[in-house]
Amino acid sequence: MNAPDKFTQLLRYACDPLPASTKRYIQGSRPDLRVPLREIMQTNGEAVTVYDTSGPYTDPTAQIDVRAGLQALRAGWIEARGDIEAYAARILHALDDGRKSDENEALHLLRAQASGLQRTPRRAKAGANVSQMHYARQGIITPEMEFVALRENQKMEWMAQYAANTERDQRLAGNSFGASIPKVMTPEFVRSEVARGRAVIPLNINHPEVEPMVIGRNFLVKINANIGNSAVTSSIEEEVEKLVWAIRWGADTVMDLSTGKNIHTTRDWIIRNSPVPIGTVPIYQALEKVGGVAEDLTWEIFRDTLIEQAEQGVDYFTVHAGVRLPFIHLTANRMTGIVSRGGSIMAKWCIAHHKENFIYTHFDEMTEILKAYDVSYSLGDGLRPGSSADANDEAQFAELRTLGELTQRAWQQDVQVMIEGPGHVPMHMVQENMTEQLKHCGEAPFYTLGPLTTDIAPGYDHITSGIGAAMIGWFGTAMLCYVTPKEHLGLPDRDDVKVGIITYKIAAHAADVAKGHPGARYRDDALSKARFEFRWMDQFNLSLDPETAKKFHDATLPKDSAKVAHFCSMCGPKFCSMKITQEVREYAKNLGLSEAAAAEQGMLEKSQEFKSGGGEIYVPVNAVIPIAQV
Amino acid sequence: MNAPDKFTQLLRYACDPLPASTKRYIQGSRPDLRVPLREIMQTNGEAVTVYDTSGPYTDPTAQIDVRAGLQALRAGWIEARGDIEAYAARILHALDDGRKSDENEALHLLRAQASGLQRTPRRAKAGANVSQMHYARQGIITPEMEFVALRENQKMEWMAQYAANTERDQRLAGNSFGASIPKVMTPEFVRSEVARGRAVIPLNINHPEVEPMVIGRNFLVKINANIGNSAVTSSIEEEVEKLVWAIRWGADTVMDLSTGKNIHTTRDWIIRNSPVPIGTVPIYQALEKVGGVAEDLTWEIFRDTLIEQAEQGVDYFTVHAGVRLPFIHLTANRMTGIVSRGGSIMAKWCIAHHKENFIYTHFDEMTEILKAYDVSYSLGDGLRPGSSADANDEAQFAELRTLGELTQRAWQQDVQVMIEGPGHVPMHMVQENMTEQLKHCGEAPFYTLGPLTTDIAPGYDHITSGIGAAMIGWFGTAMLCYVTPKEHLGLPDRDDVKVGIITYKIAAHAADVAKGHPGARYRDDALSKARFEFRWMDQFNLSLDPETAKKFHDATLPKDSAKVAHFCSMCGPKFCSMKITQEVREYAKNLGLSEAAAAEQGMLEKSQEFKSGGGEIYVPVNAVIPIAQV
Repeated sequence: MNAPDKFTQLLRYACDPLPASTKRYIQGSRPDLRVPLREIMQTNGEAVTVYDTSGPYTDPTAQIDVRAGLQALRAGWIEARGDIEAYAARILHALDDGRKSDENEALHLLRAQASGLQRTPRRAKAGANVSQMHYARQGIITPEMEFVALRENQKMEWMAQYAANTERDQRLAGNSFGASIPKVMTPEFVRSEVARGRAVIPLNINHPEVEPMVIGRNFLVKINANIGNSAVTSSIEEEVEKLVWAIRWGADTVMDLSTGKNIHTTRDWIIRNSPVPIGTVPIYQALEKVGGVAEDLTWEIFRDTLIEQAEQGVDYFTVHAGVRLPFIHLTANRMTGIVSRGGSIMAKWCIAHHKENFIYTHFDEMTEILKAYDVSYSLGDGLRPGSSADANDEAQFAELRTLGELTQRAWQQDVQVMIEGPGHVPMHMVQENMTEQLKHCGEAPFYTLGPLTTDIAPGYDHITSGIGAAMIGWFGTAMLCYVTPKEHLGLPDRDDVKVGIITYKIAAHAADVAKGHPGARYRDDALSKARFEFRWMDQFNLSLDPETAKKFHDATLPKDSAKVAHFCSMCGPKFCSMKITQEVREYAKNLGLSEAAAAEQGMLEKSQEFKSGGGEIYVPVNAVIPIAQV
Repeated sequence: MNAPDKFTQLLRYACDPLPASTKRYIQGSRPDLRVPLREIMQTNGEAVTVYDTSGPYTDPTAQIDVRAGLQALRAGWIEARGDIEAYAARILHALDDGRKSDENEALHLLRAQASGLQRTPRRAKAGANVSQMHYARQGIITPEMEFVALRENQKMEWMAQYAANTERDQRLAGNSFGASIPKVMTPEFVRSEVARGRAVIPLNINHPEVEPMVIGRNFLVKINANIGNSAVTSSIEEEVEKLVWAIRWGADTVMDLSTGKNIHTTRDWIIRNSPVPIGTVPIYQALEKVGGVAEDLTWEIFRDTLIEQAEQGVDYFTVHAGVRLPFIHLTANRMTGIVSRGGSIMAKWCIAHHKENFIYTHFDEMTEILKAYDVSYSLGDGLRPGSSADANDEAQFAELRTLGELTQRAWQQDVQVMIEGPGHVPMHMVQENMTEQLKHCGEAPFYTLGPLTTDIAPGYDHITSGIGAAMIGWFGTAMLCYVTPKEHLGLPDRDDVKVGIITYKIAAHAADVAKGHPGARYRDDALSKARFEFRWMDQFNLSLDPETAKKFHDATLPKDSAKVAHFCSMCGPKFCSMKITQEVREYAKNLGLSEAAAAEQGMLEKSQEFKSGGGEIYVPVNAVIPIAQV
């Protein structure tokens, strides 16, 4: 057997369980409903369970074969509903992979790798609607809804404790800005949220491998990571590894923003191996099909691309239906014009043809396609601001109001909708975005990129945007699209992707805590307790990135003994405040006093002390030297 | 001549002007009043000036000799006031440098390096008060006040434009939460802010090398970086290089948190070479003098240390006067007890002696010392929360109210005061900190560490805290103490220091923009314009970290030609939204239409389009295969 190549090795590495972590499953109401969690075992014997996006990859008992794809865990649930039909897929064209001819040898080699990943597509039977929203509105609680309810609860016993604590002491109670977060997530609550459009469960029936997850302001804030194909795709392992890397660190959904050659084939690779929902921007592929000439785009080519991708199993589509012809002139005096790729493509088409955006004019027809596969809308903000100077301007808000109008039209057909949001927005203008979105879009989940709170830090835009993301997440945004350090500058590498994801996990968690999500603070408390008790390994293992935390500690105190030491390299033993605090508590105990009593006794003795003290003022004067003589 | 050692090389590197940057000086009302700025020249011939903390180091015409120290630019101003006297310094003890005997050879070698840095100390003449607050309250505008007024204005012509713009369009106007930011900073405004205690100009008369700067909620938000001595100090270049590195990236003040051996001597090195105010925590050195045994501390030892450091020129002292005996038991049930080093030292002393904190009981006496040198108070928050579970609790707020009481007492002697703030605080509890501080501390400048908005990301706490720092800066905090990625884990290296500073420059700038500081948005707009016009080098050079921005761009497009290309590696030429936007504008122009007119004409043609379109719904149906047969 040959040595594994680089990407196979990376993929294996990305499948290693995180330190001290074990995959656990919560058993639902039926045998095939098992909700994954990650259990972190601490050195004091206490376990902490956390939300786990990594799928079967981090389960050592799972059989992983990227050329066969993941197990179709939802297949039975989908079939049992009796409202779908299998059919012969749309015929694959060379152009779907950006090629002029099917006789291309490189393409053959790539497609061969995907031969085990071909599936016969399903769609709704004539007259049927297979969207989760449709079931929800019929009063049906699907297994998917039960799955996400169990998944959101995380650590239920602690949630009860949190509820009791905040009843006793309101100090830490969150401020949710009018959201309706329940103390315990029930399947019925999930159903009602999906039914009213306030939550989305993105789940194409042709992507049965997904572990269902929910996006909505009354649930945990989610994050999305973008990936794209490599310049020269070499193997399925290379492309799948990017996905596995992203979900290892916590991406809740992944958008495949590939362009150029082989995008159909690599999309098969990704979807069949993805336990998280996959989103795309179909106009990118449509543009490839017309040789990159925006003016040559047509509704027919776009529609064909939607069907192509729906058959493959894409879970949500970003469509720039709100870039209407009459709005384009509103961008004329902007600092940075139109900065959305899809938005600028549609603007160019509109201007070139002097016609209304064909995605807007064909919106209801498009909705019928989405409803047949339960693809969710992510209504793109093609006119989002690309600089703080353009934030919250009329172009942006005119589009937002249009997205609200389209939301109502999608909901008429029970199709799930998210609304995309900006972009570049200074801090004091962030909340207005959320307020306007709630007002015009019927509380459909908001899904924002950042926003970036300043324009002056290329190279650090994960941070400028992490600030805005945390704030808008707190205000009610349901999903945050990550930004990497390479934003505005270049293509992110593996390290950039990881840093972007961890930054956004921080933003999402900070938002969950501030909103008062009942399960959120548990992990903070567990880590703080480990920190105070000098359980260094537990502190690392409970953190978002155990590897980096341990590496940083090793950098100054590499010895194993330092991992149980009652101080760290920052202050050393003499200045360690936590060590001293513990000594203070010892002191009081040795005196036979509680700290409170010790303090009080001290107060009694204070008067005496005041008598003996005092009187001395300032500094013994040394010889004074006149300045002139110095 | 020998090759320069490692630290001499690093120091030279840290003195290189940033790319495309030239040191400029604004001439004040007197010949020796010259305020530094950094001018960034763009490739389009336009210059942008930015606030410059780097001092003479980045001025190629300056003579830099770290063994002689910087020029004493304020010496004339201080002497001219006629209220100071020179005197024989306190006698230096071996213990001041953590040594048992002066006969120590290593110490001799170190002190020899500092021989050119010894100065005769000054203090106020008997009965005089040399604080900037005292002058301000007498109605005197000092040269220092004029200096900071000029320095705060940055780009005055743009400020006028901003004022005009916001008058026309309120969209971008800031929200300052009741601050009183003027459109133009005048020396008289600075005086009035210092007089009422709402701003601090930290300037020990024994540190005449400082380029004056101001800290207050009506000025630009400042940042502080902490440095400490090396485990084995080798040379003056090594210690000074850390300072120069920190101010190169934007530290407005630097705290020297050195402990252990040689701290007196290295402090001489740092202060004599520092153009920014230096803060210290004197209790650290006092504790060294009693062998690390907190119980052995006395007021006399502490007072002696204050004088020692005041004579050297320390500009502000962090003192933990608010850690009162009756508050200590309030920390008994905390998740993480007391996490301030100074706070825990004083708590241990109080409990051990059953006595009130000697810094609290001797506060007025201490104030007399500070007033004689114009050392400013930074009243330490020894009981700040070390975890979100402990945020905003009674221990923290009891101390804060005490700091408010002490502020009034310091102001009775016209001594300048800042108030230190937390710590670990979830987002929804951040604003309460600012509100309480303003309420109890008479608007004395707030100086906060972060706050960290979650506890779960060791290794990334510059980010968890950058979120809180940006928010609290917006709410009114005047100075933000940086946090590096190594927080909680280890000692920061040079890269960590730089990342921490850039993160906090982002937070401070985001706050300035949100507050509506009239000069703040200029740099965002200049960079956004460069971005839209594909002036890549300008985009890099205007950013907070030009090196990193350029390096990231080089990573995918290393060629020089890419630095003028009308696209980047992220989207490529076909998908570049900014390129397409420009094409849209070209289109409209070629049609002889403005964009607005082009859009309108398109609308006229719309009715026609609607006639020819429509009718087609959904997807040609392929052969349906019953699921059972698949």
